Amino acid sequence: MTDVMEETTFERLESEVRSYARSFPKKFKRATGVWMETESGERYLDFLSGCSSLNYGHNDPVLKQALLDYIAEDGIAHSLDLHTMAKEAFLEEFESTILKPRKLDYKVMFTGPTGANAVEAALKIARKVTGRHEVIAFTNGFHGMTLGALACTGNEGKRGGAGMPLSGVTRMPFNGYMGDGLDTAEYLDQVLSDPSSGIDAPAAIILETVQGEGGLNAASPAWLKRIAAIARRHGALLIADDIQAGCGRTGSFFSFEAAGLKPDVVTLAKSLSGMGLPFAVTLIKREFDIWKPGEHNGTFRGNCHAFVTATTALKHYWRSDELSAKVEEDGRYVSRRLHKLAAAIGADSSAVKGRGMMLGLDMGSGERASEIVRTAFENGLIIETSGGEDEVVKILPALTIARADLEKGMDIVEAAVRTTARPLQQMAGE
Amino acid sequence: MTDVMEETTFERLESEVRSYARSFPKKFKRATGVWMETESGERYLDFLSGCSSLNYGHNDPVLKQALLDYIAEDGIAHSLDLHTMAKEAFLEEFESTILKPRKLDYKVMFTGPTGANAVEAALKIARKVTGRHEVIAFTNGFHGMTLGALACTGNEGKRGGAGMPLSGVTRMPFNGYMGDGLDTAEYLDQVLSDPSSGIDAPAAIILETVQGEGGLNAASPAWLKRIAAIARRHGALLIADDIQAGCGRTGSFFSFEAAGLKPDVVTLAKSLSGMGLPFAVTLIKREFDIWKPGEHNGTFRGNCHAFVTATTALKHYWRSDELSAKVEEDGRYVSRRLHKLAAAIGADSSAVKGRGMMLGLDMGSGERASEIVRTAFENGLIIETSGGEDEVVKILPALTIARADLEKGMDIVEAAVRTTARPLQQMAGE
Amino acid sequence: MTDVMEETTFERLESEVRSYARSFPKKFKRATGVWMETESGERYLDFLSGCSSLNYGHNDPVLKQALLDYIAEDGIAHSLDLHTMAKEAFLEEFESTILKPRKLDYKVMFTGPTGANAVEAALKIARKVTGRHEVIAFTNGFHGMTLGALACTGNEGKRGGAGMPLSGVTRMPFNGYMGDGLDTAEYLDQVLSDPSSGIDAPAAIILETVQGEGGLNAASPAWLKRIAAIARRHGALLIADDIQAGCGRTGSFFSFEAAGLKPDVVTLAKSLSGMGLPFAVTLIKREFDIWKPGEHNGTFRGNCHAFVTATTALKHYWRSDELSAKVEEDGRYVSRRLHKLAAAIGADSSAVKGRGMMLGLDMGSGERASEIVRTAFENGLIIETSGGEDEVVKILPALTIARADLEKGMDIVEAAVRTTARPLQQMAGE
Amino acid sequence: MTDVMEETTFERLESEVRSYARSFPKKFKRATGVWMETESGERYLDFLSGCSSLNYGHNDPVLKQALLDYIAEDGIAHSLDLHTMAKEAFLEEFESTILKPRKLDYKVMFTGPTGANAVEAALKIARKVTGRHEVIAFTNGFHGMTLGALACTGNEGKRGGAGMPLSGVTRMPFNGYMGDGLDTAEYLDQVLSDPSSGIDAPAAIILETVQGEGGLNAASPAWLKRIAAIARRHGALLIADDIQAGCGRTGSFFSFEAAGLKPDVVTLAKSLSGMGLPFAVTLIKREFDIWKPGEHNGTFRGNCHAFVTATTALKHYWRSDELSAKVEEDGRYVSRRLHKLAAAIGADSSAVKGRGMMLGLDMGSGERASEIVRTAFENGLIIETSGGEDEVVKILPALTIARADLEKGMDIVEAAVRTTARPLQQMAGE
Repeated sequence: MTDVMEETTFERLESEVRSYARSFPKKFKRATGVWMETESGERYLDFLSGCSSLNYGHNDPVLKQALLDYIAEDGIAHSLDLHTMAKEAFLEEFESTILKPRKLDYKVMFTGPTGANAVEAALKIARKVTGRHEVIAFTNGFHGMTLGALACTGNEGKRGGAGMPLSGVTRMPFNGYMGDGLDTAEYLDQVLSDPSSGIDAPAAIILETVQGEGGLNAASPAWLKRIAAIARRHGALLIADDIQAGCGRTGSFFSFEAAGLKPDVVTLAKSLSGMGLPFAVTLIKREFDIWKPGEHNGTFRGNCHAFVTATTALKHYWRSDELSAKVEEDGRYVSRRLHKLAAAIGADSSAVKGRGMMLGLDMGSGERASEIVRTAFENGLIIETSGGEDEVVKILPALTIARADLEKGMDIVEAAVRTTARPLQQMAGE
Repeated sequence: MTDVMEETTFERLESEVRSYARSFPKKFKRATGVWMETESGERYLDFLSGCSSLNYGHNDPVLKQALLDYIAEDGIAHSLDLHTMAKEAFLEEFESTILKPRKLDYKVMFTGPTGANAVEAALKIARKVTGRHEVIAFTNGFHGMTLGALACTGNEGKRGGAGMPLSGVTRMPFNGYMGDGLDTAEYLDQVLSDPSSGIDAPAAIILETVQGEGGLNAASPAWLKRIAAIARRHGALLIADDIQAGCGRTGSFFSFEAAGLKPDVVTLAKSLSGMGLPFAVTLIKREFDIWKPGEHNGTFRGNCHAFVTATTALKHYWRSDELSAKVEEDGRYVSRRLHKLAAAIGADSSAVKGRGMMLGLDMGSGERASEIVRTAFENGLIIETSGGEDEVVKILPALTIARADLEKGMDIVEAAVRTTARPLQQMAGE
Repeated sequence: MTDVMEETTFERLESEVRSYARSFPKKFKRATGVWMETESGERYLDFLSGCSSLNYGHNDPVLKQALLDYIAEDGIAHSLDLHTMAKEAFLEEFESTILKPRKLDYKVMFTGPTGANAVEAALKIARKVTGRHEVIAFTNGFHGMTLGALACTGNEGKRGGAGMPLSGVTRMPFNGYMGDGLDTAEYLDQVLSDPSSGIDAPAAIILETVQGEGGLNAASPAWLKRIAAIARRHGALLIADDIQAGCGRTGSFFSFEAAGLKPDVVTLAKSLSGMGLPFAVTLIKREFDIWKPGEHNGTFRGNCHAFVTATTALKHYWRSDELSAKVEEDGRYVSRRLHKLAAAIGADSSAVKGRGMMLGLDMGSGERASEIVRTAFENGLIIETSGGEDEVVKILPALTIARADLEKGMDIVEAAVRTTARPLQQMAGE
Repeated sequence: MTDVMEETTFERLESEVRSYARSFPKKFKRATGVWMETESGERYLDFLSGCSSLNYGHNDPVLKQALLDYIAEDGIAHSLDLHTMAKEAFLEEFESTILKPRKLDYKVMFTGPTGANAVEAALKIARKVTGRHEVIAFTNGFHGMTLGALACTGNEGKRGGAGMPLSGVTRMPFNGYMGDGLDTAEYLDQVLSDPSSGIDAPAAIILETVQGEGGLNAASPAWLKRIAAIARRHGALLIADDIQAGCGRTGSFFSFEAAGLKPDVVTLAKSLSGMGLPFAVTLIKREFDIWKPGEHNGTFRGNCHAFVTATTALKHYWRSDELSAKVEEDGRYVSRRLHKLAAAIGADSSAVKGRGMMLGLDMGSGERASEIVRTAFENGLIIETSGGEDEVVKILPALTIARADLEKGMDIVEAAVRTTARPLQQMAGE
């Protein structure tokens, strides 16, 4: 085999910080839709999708053609924050296809093209609007790796990388954090109402409706509504970090639509460009858009290639409800299979995590979950884990996946789970 | 005129944070080399170059073709940090063309594709390696807008955006900060040597050799060498933030080559991809690459489009010394013209700032400098300012600019300066 | 009347920060036992006792005589941390009378003579021992007003005085904070066990067994034991802040004896000197006493007058169990009366707060409680409130109070409560 | 000898943090004036004076008698912040004897009775008044050990005790920090005027006019005036920390009188009570006294014993200029002897540090200085060091010292210096 990784180049030159490459030690060359191909022509089914950055698959032909045309015509690639036709087209499409139908009145802030940057901008504007410094974030939340965003992130390994205390964030328990043992919304309300709780009045409450890295914990619509009301009551902005769960991953374009929320600030990145190109925005309710010019900036905030593919993706996938309907349908299918799998391995239904096409199976331990990842990869499937101990096997195929491919992938998952689980069951049964 | 900006779309939908667009109220469509074209076909000469992100000009034909080919063949666009052929090619070209000839032994860390992210990673690794928390940064430094990087940034408007105190950074005067009134390297050494100075032992000293945003202050090679020695003596890592000054802007690929430095950590972004695509790396001396897998990560750290154009740019422009020589030659030309201009307006030679093709003219006040920017734009030139009070007119054309275009641009600058300066001179002379 | 306060001197010269003086606008001259006398000879019964700083009453004759003798003989008053006979006597008495009988093996650290200083020292040693920075403190906790101690304090008015974010402290719900709605020890254990909770591994858990300022919430022995076990399990030091509840206020010398705890660090101040003289210590388990000489110091850490009175107090009051027994007996008496009062005003038994002779009645609102304070003062009783909204009337007489005086004071409290409560009841009943 | 320290009690029970006791391993019993007596009757001349807490000597007979009378009459000892006759008397005496003659219009804030607490209160009020968080402090400054005050303190050993980063303070070079190499006032003005310096607009500038712990560096009146003007110009409060240098140590009651300053905030402690009793105040210009009641408080802020001795000290020592004149006269005497000594050991005149009766000799190294301390102690003199490396032998006798005792002490110092210096000289001369 010619594409067995010798890895000399990567091992020799790439920093030890590399991570996914350790789970999938192949060298990839090209990809279309849900299929990735290695240098030597092996094909892998992709259920990772760039951690939900490739909701329309790799190199979607419509997006790809739009980008090729744009580049061929010498369309501007990099524009700082100058006005470009590409940006105008994006703004207009985003307004007409996304904002207006949902009665959302946001200003669009083009941040540096990473989710972390969009989160940093969201935190800044919330602190600026309220004149407060503390931000409420939740257990198992993930919001990025730069110092401000990292303070909001729960994972101790990531946090530890800071090399200094992370400040400005108060941690609260997420929906269901203690099962029935705690009404976490009531707890939040109580500490914010109590002048002696020691919890400072917050600038913002930042949350993911489904915690993509933190174990696919999905907040209930009722809980989300209560948190929104608590934020309003206590003068805090509600920031929905929709970087992983947005752009259709849960069915609707925004993940908070099911709960009827209109957050004060929304962050988007990952699948926003549609083709995996770096792109992030922070949406800010019109009345809170009190930035001074250039108060937050970034060299690559005018990535026109991404504007072009993002505009095309909105036109192609979001002018109708078709994709949403498909995501819900596919989500039900995957969910059914995961519930069956959970039952088969003796887990109860709470082991099935997530919502829409952002689902997973809690294997109870990181060891078992990563064994499944390994086995699946041997069988041609790229899949990853989520959760504080990497204990949840995470199903994140492109939303455009054909049913046959989805079945194929789920078959591989199922086989890997059963293989992994069997010996444990047997041991338990002996 | 059809492209007079009504700006309705941008004003209606884009956040108030937009800044450059306010100086250059046109809607741009396409661009090649140093020329940008508006929707209606007006052409502007670009002396801003995406703040040094477009050192090879817009849509360099060689880079453009390589990217078109890659996309057409369904090359992987987004790869998280998986091994891809595009990344391997970049690493190998970077090693052979950049690192080896300069006897530099760095591991390459692919960070989120913004300069700020590369800086955040640099700060983290320095804190991790040393177990210390404080970082020395300099007056007028600019290192990005996320909370960790922003703490290193000097500009009060940017800093104020944080909405909370910025910690972990100790500020020191840059080379020449008080003219002859202070040997700033000696001062730094003294406070670090004095156990009662109140300056904590630092994890790192971070600097730009030429302060791109802070007024084009160029550190002398001698000062840079002394700072490197001070860092070593006090157990701190030296971080060269070469995001704006690197990639050939000062002549050599790295801006610190003239001083013979081998910084412990180097950040690169802006022109690294060559075509303005988002891309950033943090280079870390092999012995300090002690990251745990995934300890710092980011969704877009595997932007393969950028790998492709970056690799092509290195091949095309850096396998020989030609570009470096041209930059030095052009730099001398621009410098001569600026010195003449300085003399013409009664300023002394210290009004000419910068090094290589990163030059500027200190107009003494932000008002005068921005008047020049406006006048130049009316005459078809895009140019910006630098400095704490935006008082320096900054000359940042593509390094590949033809001499005729360079002359043309400098003529426009000169006319604008003379126009702007004359009334003031007259008033002063009355 | 000659001692009506004109207050010109105080109003003219004393800072607006003065507080208790606003509730009790008289000018006091002398005091013995539980009686305070104004300039003009009015006598007030003292149920405030310097916020538990005068557990043996004002000018206890035995303590007073010891101090007079010491001063008359030119005993050293101020000694920095030199060895003095007064300090030696205190150490030996503290060892033989307090530590040994309780099988406690602490080193005694003489801090600056304020409770806040003792807390700051406790936080420092915990951070030094563990190499961690975060400290767990509880809702409604009060630990002092200097920046480190204030970060542990819950009250928002006090916290706001800092004028900057308070860092290094993570807030957790105290025992019973959400009634039966939350097992707060389990919650603490869960967030410390969860690697993705976002709660950093703590250097220490700091608590008061009865929250003197925060509303007289008394932790159960079972909860305290669990917290101690959680601290141990997660590698954190347990700091018992016994500044208000210690020195016999709850019956035993330390307030944590009933729970059988042996905290790693204990802070004492207030009644430690016995006569109200400034004196504070931090007790540190022998194995954690890893201070470098002078690493924490303070000019007045050698207040020998306080050593003398403290030693005398220990000899006189703690060599036998008599005082403890009296406190428990008196506590039962006060508790009975408060329960009757609670019933009389239609409150349930949870309105009676506290433990030992550190009891109070929750009036449900700060307005009602302060009306009681006013009425009581008109009737010759000095009494104060506690709680986040000052809603708890707090009974803190000297522990040495004669039963007749205690009854007299409780009669005044009862009358004030009934007077205050009646109109409300009537209104409610109309 | 009976008083050879076995130290069993102290070694067994007192924390390892003890420091002075290690230099002077005797057990002290009583003291009057400048003489301390051990348990066995040995007498030591005290040139340390509780680090300037005993400016009127030990057990000054007038102060002592006033205190004895007060206690004998059951004067209130502890009063929280209630109005007491003792406090009123202090306020009135402080107004008439100190404030009015100097045309100072301060409100007096009684803080917790430690210098650190007074500094914490000063920092809070400055941050509250200005709405800013950063405070400028100077190299070699010492302001206390609680977290807020410690952030202002320069000494790295003390700072390190915090166990976490100290924030909210920006360090600037003190007067003369780089000799003639830097005009430190100009530097401060420049960084505060420069919007891109990275130095945030400060809430306050805090300084000691003579750095008591940091090496007895005395700021010139001209420099102090410039700093005051800079504070005013940049909207920052000027805080004079006069804890060690105040109460007459430099001749005038406040150390800043010679420079004609009227700082916005002044902290006093140490010698304020006159007899070494814990007492501290923060003086705040009337217009800045915007505290809310109780916003900063402390149990021992009403230490009436200290009010009594402080009032007596003001009456006895400050109603006339006699003491000031004596301090200046004695200061000249000590200075002359130190200059001679400096010359004798080959040092130049800059080795004589300080001002008034706060003088010292820079021995160039901590080893030599501590050898002098040891030798002096063997000869019956208690004396200590100052400076970042403890390199300055510090002369701090009571201000009331008789000339004969002063000569005696200086003779011992001289002998110790000559003994210590000789071998070094000889070695150098060999």
